[in-house]
Amino acid sequence: MATNIGVIGTGNIGSFHVRTLSTQVSGAAVTAVFDVDGERAKALADDVGARAHATADGVIVDDEVDAVLIASPGPLHPQQVMACLDVGKPVLCEKPLGVTSAECLAILDAEITGGRQLVQVGFMRRYDPGYLQVKGALDSGQIGEPLMVHCVHRNPTVPPSFQADMAITDSVVHEIDTSRWLLGEEIVAVTVLAGRKSPHARSDDPQLVLFETASGVLVDLESFVNCQYGYDVRCELVGSEGVVNLDGPGLTAITKSAARSTAVPADWRMRFGPAYVVELQEWVDSVTSGVYAGADAWDGYAATAVAEAGLRARAQRTRVEVDLVERPTFYPGPR
Amino acid sequence: MATNIGVIGTGNIGSFHVRTLSTQVSGAAVTAVFDVDGERAKALADDVGARAHATADGVIVDDEVDAVLIASPGPLHPQQVMACLDVGKPVLCEKPLGVTSAECLAILDAEITGGRQLVQVGFMRRYDPGYLQVKGALDSGQIGEPLMVHCVHRNPTVPPSFQADMAITDSVVHEIDTSRWLLGEEIVAVTVLAGRKSPHARSDDPQLVLFETASGVLVDLESFVNCQYGYDVRCELVGSEGVVNLDGPGLTAITKSAARSTAVPADWRMRFGPAYVVELQEWVDSVTSGVYAGADAWDGYAATAVAEAGLRARAQRTRVEVDLVERPTFYPGPR
Amino acid sequence: MATNIGVIGTGNIGSFHVRTLSTQVSGAAVTAVFDVDGERAKALADDVGARAHATADGVIVDDEVDAVLIASPGPLHPQQVMACLDVGKPVLCEKPLGVTSAECLAILDAEITGGRQLVQVGFMRRYDPGYLQVKGALDSGQIGEPLMVHCVHRNPTVPPSFQADMAITDSVVHEIDTSRWLLGEEIVAVTVLAGRKSPHARSDDPQLVLFETASGVLVDLESFVNCQYGYDVRCELVGSEGVVNLDGPGLTAITKSAARSTAVPADWRMRFGPAYVVELQEWVDSVTSGVYAGADAWDGYAATAVAEAGLRARAQRTRVEVDLVERPTFYPGPR
Amino acid sequence: MATNIGVIGTGNIGSFHVRTLSTQVSGAAVTAVFDVDGERAKALADDVGARAHATADGVIVDDEVDAVLIASPGPLHPQQVMACLDVGKPVLCEKPLGVTSAECLAILDAEITGGRQLVQVGFMRRYDPGYLQVKGALDSGQIGEPLMVHCVHRNPTVPPSFQADMAITDSVVHEIDTSRWLLGEEIVAVTVLAGRKSPHARSDDPQLVLFETASGVLVDLESFVNCQYGYDVRCELVGSEGVVNLDGPGLTAITKSAARSTAVPADWRMRFGPAYVVELQEWVDSVTSGVYAGADAWDGYAATAVAEAGLRARAQRTRVEVDLVERPTFYPGPR
Repeated sequence: MATNIGVIGTGNIGSFHVRTLSTQVSGAAVTAVFDVDGERAKALADDVGARAHATADGVIVDDEVDAVLIASPGPLHPQQVMACLDVGKPVLCEKPLGVTSAECLAILDAEITGGRQLVQVGFMRRYDPGYLQVKGALDSGQIGEPLMVHCVHRNPTVPPSFQADMAITDSVVHEIDTSRWLLGEEIVAVTVLAGRKSPHARSDDPQLVLFETASGVLVDLESFVNCQYGYDVRCELVGSEGVVNLDGPGLTAITKSAARSTAVPADWRMRFGPAYVVELQEWVDSVTSGVYAGADAWDGYAATAVAEAGLRARAQRTRVEVDLVERPTFYPGPR
Repeated sequence: MATNIGVIGTGNIGSFHVRTLSTQVSGAAVTAVFDVDGERAKALADDVGARAHATADGVIVDDEVDAVLIASPGPLHPQQVMACLDVGKPVLCEKPLGVTSAECLAILDAEITGGRQLVQVGFMRRYDPGYLQVKGALDSGQIGEPLMVHCVHRNPTVPPSFQADMAITDSVVHEIDTSRWLLGEEIVAVTVLAGRKSPHARSDDPQLVLFETASGVLVDLESFVNCQYGYDVRCELVGSEGVVNLDGPGLTAITKSAARSTAVPADWRMRFGPAYVVELQEWVDSVTSGVYAGADAWDGYAATAVAEAGLRARAQRTRVEVDLVERPTFYPGPR
Repeated sequence: MATNIGVIGTGNIGSFHVRTLSTQVSGAAVTAVFDVDGERAKALADDVGARAHATADGVIVDDEVDAVLIASPGPLHPQQVMACLDVGKPVLCEKPLGVTSAECLAILDAEITGGRQLVQVGFMRRYDPGYLQVKGALDSGQIGEPLMVHCVHRNPTVPPSFQADMAITDSVVHEIDTSRWLLGEEIVAVTVLAGRKSPHARSDDPQLVLFETASGVLVDLESFVNCQYGYDVRCELVGSEGVVNLDGPGLTAITKSAARSTAVPADWRMRFGPAYVVELQEWVDSVTSGVYAGADAWDGYAATAVAEAGLRARAQRTRVEVDLVERPTFYPGPR
Repeated sequence: MATNIGVIGTGNIGSFHVRTLSTQVSGAAVTAVFDVDGERAKALADDVGARAHATADGVIVDDEVDAVLIASPGPLHPQQVMACLDVGKPVLCEKPLGVTSAECLAILDAEITGGRQLVQVGFMRRYDPGYLQVKGALDSGQIGEPLMVHCVHRNPTVPPSFQADMAITDSVVHEIDTSRWLLGEEIVAVTVLAGRKSPHARSDDPQLVLFETASGVLVDLESFVNCQYGYDVRCELVGSEGVVNLDGPGLTAITKSAARSTAVPADWRMRFGPAYVVELQEWVDSVTSGVYAGADAWDGYAATAVAEAGLRARAQRTRVEVDLVERPTFYPGPR
């Protein structure tokens, strides 16, 4: 009766998903997993009563897999998503849908050919109660028309393997999606400016990223991957009649040693852990109902296309326009 | 493979639990329900694929029920809990465990005789992230020894059926449990003072309730069931080296019309809904593991005994000492 | 053209007043000072261009003194205030007006006999912007009728010379005045309960003080003079339609090392320094206009009478009723 | 003994200064005023015991005027400041020091020729306790090196007389000064981007203004003069080790009707009124001591030069470099 899930990639985020699906989601069972590190996959599979496959395709074609969650490295996503579409199985793909927009467009074609939505992209912030309140405040009309958005996205540090471009593709991409989703429109241009370089940074960091939307809303984002102090994500949406602010989620304050302090989350897991649980629950429910509410393949394509423009904008330190194909009517567009 | 749950009582809280167990809890299925309103029970049962029984006992003895959740009116709890103990099934009983401490003591005896823990009492605040942070701050030692606690518990309004005593038995009882749990010790005396009476109140309201614990910590609580503006629960624990504050859970603020505002929850469901989900998940997990971390029968007994003292303290407007039996070694005591 | 002020007592608070009057108050000049420590008085007098007298009376009768500020030890206040009344000079007396209510009553008699208001008592919180907002919220009617008040008054530490009674007479006395002033009515009974004793305290500390007002409003106050972390004064006024909170005055927050922190004032000077400036400016203006808006002699008497009841309540750990004389029509009463 | 002040311009801000100097500043007396509206000047002069002059020069050369405060329309500032320098009198000039940088440079020349500092420019935020805390946090080293600054400057509405350029010259100019002062360095380039236009605005509004400083710090500023809801000025300084935030100065919160709300100031007077008092007190003290700590003529010139660049940047929607002359050693530069 449970929906059987196969998970590809059991690293940091993949193993987190496997455990969440197995212990916190109603109606779900992880039945198959794959990872290039076979031992890691085997150990995790044993823990949750799943089978460890020797290949990703093994998971996808497994008869005991109803739907697939892809948490492998980004460059592998398109081929694996396409394989899911080939066998007609719903797939939740961690971002990015594809590293290039061309790869994403191929997925769109395949999904349209199949005739029904099977792809969801893992933009979990859409399930965060705080972001939902921001969207609710805007959609209710109480702050008027959206005019500007100010965002902050800070990570304490990045590992040595972190490449400069990843600030755009791995971090800023979340604000690309939240901006499109909150405002319900496409981003048409990107500019990336360097702030003064942190002594802790190897490449330009922090950076100021500017998005312009189709209707002229200006979104500015401080992207800072070496802020040292914690994982801090904030958003202020400025409307014509008022403003809504998403601050850090401080539940308690400790007053001690001459200061009143609220903890900042240490990492994405502490900040967005609950959002992932909701995302997985709603996705599992969607597999049954066939109705998906999260980011779809078009959203995944648009995010990649804007990130591509962002990479050029960053490299050239100039404003770059986003080049989107005409949206197929199959997809409803940003909402 | 799922744990099959029978639910007794499908009113406000009972139906909330049925839906939560069916849609948000991993490894759980609601297989049987009962309510005095047979039609209501039937409709809900059909929704979630359960069977509606003609009696509460029918649920308890149903072979397809592994564990029972009791959400019936308080006076029925003791008999129903005892019936669960008779058949050796784990039971999560909404508060109160019993209306009188004598009833609770009978349950303790029965559980001890059975030789293993089967009873959990539904004090959901123990699963609230904010309360857990308060407890964490104290247990970590960073605020020193606990000295005082200031609590606020406000409801917007109460229905016409609300009796004056219910402020103690239905509302204050939550702070009885959180005080014992946070401080890890028993409450030894209660005083209830009347504030100036609200024009919206039918009986004394707000009231100031004082608890004294075994080690001398003084807990004061504003109990106000007609505050008009929302459901507002707060807690400040004063330690010898610092203070920890649990404020309302405001994620976002709207600035408009000359003010910056954060919403106050409208009711307990908005405030503690997520805590109930965690409570049910952990309880379902406990049914399998046999290890329960929530409030046990002793906690339920102690809460009722303190509430009894509170009722006398309120009626007589005097300080009343709590009369607890010696704690059986079967129970670990407040923690 | 400036109003010439004589200051009696140039200790901690007295010298603070002398400097404030000399550098931050319009239309004021300090022309005479006295202190038992003659050298200290002389040095301060030289700094601000004043004359140091050999006695307090010398200041009071000095022809170049238009008005007197008394910042000497409390037991000396009544005699010095009476001397000011004898010569018909306005006097701002630091709290307490008198150590006993009998002393205060004698002052009331003398002032009434003189036929015009000359006495103001230095309850500076009445000039704090935050307290004024609390009073404004209540007086505007927007939170309805006042029903309860929750107060916190914490000091980091107290010196070895601190006597247990001083928690009532020096610290709690501020909430006695603010409660009367905010609510516009007298306090009729006091209870003082001991919390668990801080390991840093020599006598019971923290304590929970309860005031009952004429209309039945219940005021609770945590008095904690060894809280370690800072000087923290807060107030929450609960009305029938809403609540107003006076929190600490945090202007900025620093986010660092995994926490977002706001500084707590280190002492009364940091917290209420600006209020003292306003108090002195308005008092100096009153000397010219003859119209006083601050705490008057009746307020000073009432504060002492309630503090006397508080001392008995503390000693006997019982509720003590406040015994006020009938208010002379000369005084408008609390407002 | 008091310092005699002459005030030129008794409109909105000028009359505010006259009253502040007369009633809240120690050691100051307003002895002379001028305004083009002679009746307004006369009425105000009578109120505070000053003489109303027929011309601005009449004030400047008045023997009973020790120092001059200029609050006339901006275009008149340079000639009036020069007239003060001619007679060697200290002058506090409201911003701008001059409408063009050429005018400002002429003032610098004249002051240098005179050989001592006489000019201060009225950037009052340097006296705001909140901004001082931000500067203190940076200067203390606790947040590391400054990397980015995020600013918000909102006005509820603007009058019909408001010209589009005034967003830069009258509003943004405050952040020009605070940025230079906080960071201790010059602004070298300005960019002005249009957000989506508010339906309440006649010209582009809100706008996003970007400053680049000599060391590469990027300052972004939302300038929004039609935000409807209040006067809201905020600042977040991002350092390499932490962040400091200047939020609105909320002292109290009212919880009512399902929301907890803090008032936003209605206008600059409510927000920065206390800062003006400190500014005037310190300036009056400086007239006596000869040591000025506020913004000097160089700061006034730099602010105008950056604003000029801002006007071009706004008109051309492009990045414009700021063209500053070499700083005379007479001036210490931004600090």
